[in-house]
Amino acid sequence: MHTSSIPNWNVPEPALRRLPWYLSYIKLLKKKGQTHVSSTQIAKKINVSSTQIAKDLSYVKISGKTRVGYEISLLIDVLETFLGFTSQHKAVILGVGSLGGALLGDSGLEQFGLKIFAGFDVSDGVIGCKINDIPVYHIDDFAKYNNKIDADIAILTVPPDNAQEVADFAIKNGVRAIWNFTPFRIRVPEHIVLQNTSLYAHLAVMFNRLSVNASNSKK
Amino acid sequence: MHTSSIPNWNVPEPALRRLPWYLSYIKLLKKKGQTHVSSTQIAKKINVSSTQIAKDLSYVKISGKTRVGYEISLLIDVLETFLGFTSQHKAVILGVGSLGGALLGDSGLEQFGLKIFAGFDVSDGVIGCKINDIPVYHIDDFAKYNNKIDADIAILTVPPDNAQEVADFAIKNGVRAIWNFTPFRIRVPEHIVLQNTSLYAHLAVMFNRLSVNASNSKK
Repeated sequence: MHTSSIPNWNVPEPALRRLPWYLSYIKLLKKKGQTHVSSTQIAKKINVSSTQIAKDLSYVKISGKTRVGYEISLLIDVLETFLGFTSQHKAVILGVGSLGGALLGDSGLEQFGLKIFAGFDVSDGVIGCKINDIPVYHIDDFAKYNNKIDADIAILTVPPDNAQEVADFAIKNGVRAIWNFTPFRIRVPEHIVLQNTSLYAHLAVMFNRLSVNASNSKK
Repeated sequence: MHTSSIPNWNVPEPALRRLPWYLSYIKLLKKKGQTHVSSTQIAKKINVSSTQIAKDLSYVKISGKTRVGYEISLLIDVLETFLGFTSQHKAVILGVGSLGGALLGDSGLEQFGLKIFAGFDVSDGVIGCKINDIPVYHIDDFAKYNNKIDADIAILTVPPDNAQEVADFAIKNGVRAIWNFTPFRIRVPEHIVLQNTSLYAHLAVMFNRLSVNASNSKK
């Protein structure tokens, strides 16, 4: 197995989304004491073809040896670095309501490279509080705050009515990526990264599929 | 505008994921006092073509009138019902660690039709506690509990090492859908609904795009 020092950054999104699956699985294999893995073994477990897996892994400039496969420890290191999980990415949460507060309380994100420095809101009920040791400030103080901290990522958990306005405000004050958890479809300039994670859209798909299954089973 | 009593359940997933965007936007328009909306107006805001929007809305058996467009109040009702946000879907959370605990604390999901009845874990630190007034039990009590409650949906927030095992266990005990928040790619029988929401995959995409933008701006 060999790695090159320059990874290919131009990775299609579906491949990027699959890489963490492989990482998760081979970490499990490592815990079990396994040292090498083939794309065929990953394929059997993950429900992705071994050709696809080999192609996805070639984006990170890593290739398996014939018959031996990939060296697990090295593959874990390379994947974690490539996926950005070993660097610290600075983030803030805009909107400390129910979901925003919940995300502030989730320490797990930090293990994947996301360090949340502060939350911002307009409600007296949360301003001045700390959640999971992270302070919550008034949104009016964001410009001054981000001038110092220089957070790259704004996690957007405001009510949908304010989603676009708050996203624009965050971008104006220096954030380079918006992680949008609101059900609102915000728009951002081309140089800004937008990642939508709509729990509600996922609920809609799940509810619909459950209904379909229920009506099929009645037939 | 007319509606038929039998909606088309066989909706492609991308359409299902877009419908909540339209809903969110027209709810905002309603708050502003607007009574009708055209697919062209939605298209301008949402960055989806008006043809696509009209097609997506036709799945819910609703069509706009020429020149007047869709009646907003009716469209909101029809969409909310169709998406399942107005019914109560019973759920449990398996794994009350950092993310599971955070989701228990998020009351917002209930407004979208997801009612979480209980959390389950193996750790003495959380068993017997209540989070957001929702009790946490030992996972060994799940079979007995779900016999009574009959939860449809298991929200999976266990460590990735146990994801498959706990999913199998939940399915064996009657759940019909798994909402998988772990980075592990679990497999389920064909009649079981699986929805993956990997925050870590979304992080990976966002980190990568940020790196690409940063290296482009240096050129």
